[in-house]
Amino acid sequence: LHFLRRFPYPLLVAHFNHRLRPAADSDAEFVWEAARVLDLPFVSDSADVAAHARDAGQSLEQAARELRYRFLFRAAREAGAQAVATGHTADDQAETVLMHFLRGAGLSGLKGMPPRVLLPVFDAEIPLVRPLLTWTRADTEAYCHKHGISYLTDATNADTTYFRNRLRHQLLPELQHYNPQIRQTLAKTAHALQGDYELLDELVEAAWRKSLRETGDGFVAFERSRLTGLSPALRRNLLRKAAFALQPGLRDVDFDALERAAALRPGSTDVAGGLAVLVEAATVFVLTSGVELPSAEWPQVPVSSEQLAVISGENPLGNGWILTCELTDNCSLSTDNWSAALDAGLTEGRLEVRRFRSGDRLEPLGMSHQSIKVADLFINEKIPQRARKNWPLVCVDDEIAWVPGLRMAEKFKVTEKTRQVVKLQLKRLP
Amino acid sequence: LHFLRRFPYPLLVAHFNHRLRPAADSDAEFVWEAARVLDLPFVSDSADVAAHARDAGQSLEQAARELRYRFLFRAAREAGAQAVATGHTADDQAETVLMHFLRGAGLSGLKGMPPRVLLPVFDAEIPLVRPLLTWTRADTEAYCHKHGISYLTDATNADTTYFRNRLRHQLLPELQHYNPQIRQTLAKTAHALQGDYELLDELVEAAWRKSLRETGDGFVAFERSRLTGLSPALRRNLLRKAAFALQPGLRDVDFDALERAAALRPGSTDVAGGLAVLVEAATVFVLTSGVELPSAEWPQVPVSSEQLAVISGENPLGNGWILTCELTDNCSLSTDNWSAALDAGLTEGRLEVRRFRSGDRLEPLGMSHQSIKVADLFINEKIPQRARKNWPLVCVDDEIAWVPGLRMAEKFKVTEKTRQVVKLQLKRLP
Repeated sequence: LHFLRRFPYPLLVAHFNHRLRPAADSDAEFVWEAARVLDLPFVSDSADVAAHARDAGQSLEQAARELRYRFLFRAAREAGAQAVATGHTADDQAETVLMHFLRGAGLSGLKGMPPRVLLPVFDAEIPLVRPLLTWTRADTEAYCHKHGISYLTDATNADTTYFRNRLRHQLLPELQHYNPQIRQTLAKTAHALQGDYELLDELVEAAWRKSLRETGDGFVAFERSRLTGLSPALRRNLLRKAAFALQPGLRDVDFDALERAAALRPGSTDVAGGLAVLVEAATVFVLTSGVELPSAEWPQVPVSSEQLAVISGENPLGNGWILTCELTDNCSLSTDNWSAALDAGLTEGRLEVRRFRSGDRLEPLGMSHQSIKVADLFINEKIPQRARKNWPLVCVDDEIAWVPGLRMAEKFKVTEKTRQVVKLQLKRLP
Repeated sequence: LHFLRRFPYPLLVAHFNHRLRPAADSDAEFVWEAARVLDLPFVSDSADVAAHARDAGQSLEQAARELRYRFLFRAAREAGAQAVATGHTADDQAETVLMHFLRGAGLSGLKGMPPRVLLPVFDAEIPLVRPLLTWTRADTEAYCHKHGISYLTDATNADTTYFRNRLRHQLLPELQHYNPQIRQTLAKTAHALQGDYELLDELVEAAWRKSLRETGDGFVAFERSRLTGLSPALRRNLLRKAAFALQPGLRDVDFDALERAAALRPGSTDVAGGLAVLVEAATVFVLTSGVELPSAEWPQVPVSSEQLAVISGENPLGNGWILTCELTDNCSLSTDNWSAALDAGLTEGRLEVRRFRSGDRLEPLGMSHQSIKVADLFINEKIPQRARKNWPLVCVDDEIAWVPGLRMAEKFKVTEKTRQVVKLQLKRLP
């Protein structure tokens, strides 16, 4: 605070009381008094962090961080501030890098804390800045002594039941036997890796723009063909980015899972925190478990109906799909996967639409007396699992006459005996 | 060796005896015997590594590595081998990553040993492969026990005066208190960072192709204007790549020095191991100290001559530069920086070319009775330092009449009194 006053920015002091320590209230008062002496405005808030952690199923540190930053950015917005400044030092940076190194975090963790960063979860525009990140803790203490500034020492900093405190008080002094400048070295490593990370991020950002199909509630969808053209490392980074976009609070994504998912083999791979990567023929989804994926690209039986009698003219299904039905004398109609010509004498106005059931079979056109599983047709045509269960089948007395998009049944085909033809067509409104 | 025999490659056993340990000879015999039992061809060589290290001023480890790899790749070439395979395990990988972490190495060090890599210093085409890199040391021991394979233990592995051995026997067991799986974690970190590194390397490779002007003996030259368009991180990586291209044996390049150099402020910055980055107006050089940089783009007085009388017609300087001189009656010649029209009555055939000397001054055209330093002209026109000392000046009795490329002197200009004009032009042959 004393140092920031040298710069021509108006300052606002914001203190968040976590109510975790007996001295918490007197600490808050100390900060308020410091602001008063420097004649600076002061805002504060407090919360029962321990209770919040219990309720949200978070660790104490996670809950404290979330509540603290929520308050700081709210205060910044209300004051119209340009940034939130925190007092992290090069020692904090070294500890952060070491912590990630021990946990196996990859570049995004090893790069440590950036001197300036946007945290969109808390605010999309106000950055968090760390003006003391190149100062060591010793530097800050020397500064205080030089300027006669009194300061508090957080007693819990000495509590080595916290992982970070064990690093600070036990491991880092041990590592000094291997490199006396270990703290400075790690802070430099963070700085160097931040540049590399930014570079990678530019690359991932560009790949994201090129390969994204859509983002929806709880999912991100990529064009599979775009992803296959990228290097595995870029694919991994893209999937990780999607995971963080879906769950900003995510700690890290398991590398092995990411690597398996990035191989883009059809199927689903769990990656982290209730997220999965689902690879389909044309699309790769990163999704929150249980999320309803969009299926507008496939014809589906409407959720409400069990059986749907097919009438002459237009039969609306759902998602803009329409089944048209007309009677004609033209026995030489050309058809494709999405249209069919049936012998009207065999269907006799008993056509119905129902959804696919596992076990469904049909004798396909051109293969009399040989039935195949509809499920196998789906697999051959790479219809994704989620599109199959509501796939519309056109039946006569529950016998499958046509699987739109795939095959019609031999039994209902137009022959020389046919007098009238039922022409069916399934199409989607633009 | 036992494991590699499962694959359909012909194998050659190559052993290098470093002659560093008392057991070195019996170890070599053990390997020869193992090859004989498996009926595999065997080649070996040895050297006095300690003596070589002393002579070359290298550490024992450096000298051993250089001699060993030189032998292995020579043997591979002679046998027409597709690869040199070494026995590095995931434990070696973890130690390598930890060593780089403690020394502050950046991504290129933290990524550890790749499973496949070209080492152009030893061979441009035969890669080094590490088929056991995903095996832990315990895996290899279990494999040996299972197949009844006897093995040797290098006694110096227990010698904790070696940095690597201290990591293996002291630090890694200590780190297991923070992460019981630390070895596997570090091997995974290496694997993950290798992907990121490859991605970055593609980016750097593309930037290199776009911004390289030329490479020469002991230097790499980039177009400065191309570099300024890149992000600082990409510039740093590009300069590092150039440093490694000049000195393949380089351990690492100091990050702070790289960062200073990447700011591209004119001047010279030492980066590592006798290398410097020299930033000029149009060119950025990475160079070995003492190397003669190309100066063909600038006119220079030939090294051999002190003073050069200007004759009518063509006066060759050096590097393809020609000074032409002709007498004419045309008093209204148009001139530019590289041509000048002087009053022939004032020069009277006494024109000479000499090199620039510090302290040189001239009264430039349009500024009578006011002299300026030629050095200041150089600075204004961003002529690099190394081009200045041999810059040709056209003089009359040692008085500067024209600084080619920059200015002519007021005193020698063509006036209404001029009868005849000396037309000078400096140009470079294509």
